[in-house]
Amino acid sequence: MARTQGSHSGITGPRVRKAALTLFARHGYAAVSMRQIARDVGVQAGALYNYTPDKQSLLFDLMKTHMDELLASRAALAAPPSPAAALESFTRMHIRFHSERPDAVFIAYMELRNLSPENFAAIEALRRVYEDQLEEILRAGVISGDFTVADPKVTTMAVIAMLTGVNTWFREGGRLSLEEVEQIYWDMVRKAVGA
Amino acid sequence: MARTQGSHSGITGPRVRKAALTLFARHGYAAVSMRQIARDVGVQAGALYNYTPDKQSLLFDLMKTHMDELLASRAALAAPPSPAAALESFTRMHIRFHSERPDAVFIAYMELRNLSPENFAAIEALRRVYEDQLEEILRAGVISGDFTVADPKVTTMAVIAMLTGVNTWFREGGRLSLEEVEQIYWDMVRKAVGA
Repeated sequence: MARTQGSHSGITGPRVRKAALTLFARHGYAAVSMRQIARDVGVQAGALYNYTPDKQSLLFDLMKTHMDELLASRAALAAPPSPAAALESFTRMHIRFHSERPDAVFIAYMELRNLSPENFAAIEALRRVYEDQLEEILRAGVISGDFTVADPKVTTMAVIAMLTGVNTWFREGGRLSLEEVEQIYWDMVRKAVGA
Repeated sequence: MARTQGSHSGITGPRVRKAALTLFARHGYAAVSMRQIARDVGVQAGALYNYTPDKQSLLFDLMKTHMDELLASRAALAAPPSPAAALESFTRMHIRFHSERPDAVFIAYMELRNLSPENFAAIEALRRVYEDQLEEILRAGVISGDFTVADPKVTTMAVIAMLTGVNTWFREGGRLSLEEVEQIYWDMVRKAVGA
């Protein structure tokens, strides 16, 4: 059977990815076997190879899908009227996107070490595209005089780390709603760039 | 033989911890065996048990040592003349401390999932002590009128995530020195809290 998609891939493909995502996030990529993933999905180990050539491809698929979705989410934002508006919608989108995908975010950071060199390069390139989009917003704001930013590249990394960090502590149903959290973070980002 | 320290523990203890730190950071706790650690240290697997009762204790020891050192580093800071000075020295200390220990930082975040419930609670309590120290600085600055912070608890988490994020991109010998990076981050933190 071809190693691409089998006849049930519309159902099993997403289930395989979901099982791999959960298992990798809980135990770590290196500690999870294809057999475990198959057991979670409820198929024979051999059947798993109809959907993915190997565990490395599964990891890469998860990380690439995550980055593709992030870039699509960013691309879907309305054209902003100003650098400050662009930065605000980027900030809110980043928090919402990541808070909805705790396992994928965890894997995206933690399992970089387990990607093959080519796969690592591909994921790094996508991540760079995303970072460059934020850096471009910062540079536009500096040029327009809206922002005061000493080093747009460093500020990009700082803002992304700050926003992604919401995942380490935010819990739905806690003291603050996600909207309130977004507002507090946007206020900090705005002030940090002098807007 | 007692499970506490053997006669060579002054030499082997740190070597065991160093080997475990490196292996856990590279492959993940779950994927590393006591046998591998022993091989790296150059002792028989059985001899390892003179220094640690099991792998879980080794992980806990690494994470607890990390937090103890962080709290000691914080305690060693000179008494600050103002909330802004306190925040600045906290910011610089945090960046320096973490940039010197990439493997320990990686493990401190990544392997929380692999701690036993009691060990997790102990590490979380130490982390809370550290976070509370930053939160106290922020609250003091709000009371004195030096800072404008809507939610000191959230700002604490945001600042810590931002500062720890330096580890994901900073490399010694790159475009910026660590001192320059500290200055840029301090400038962002200062502005973010309205100081």
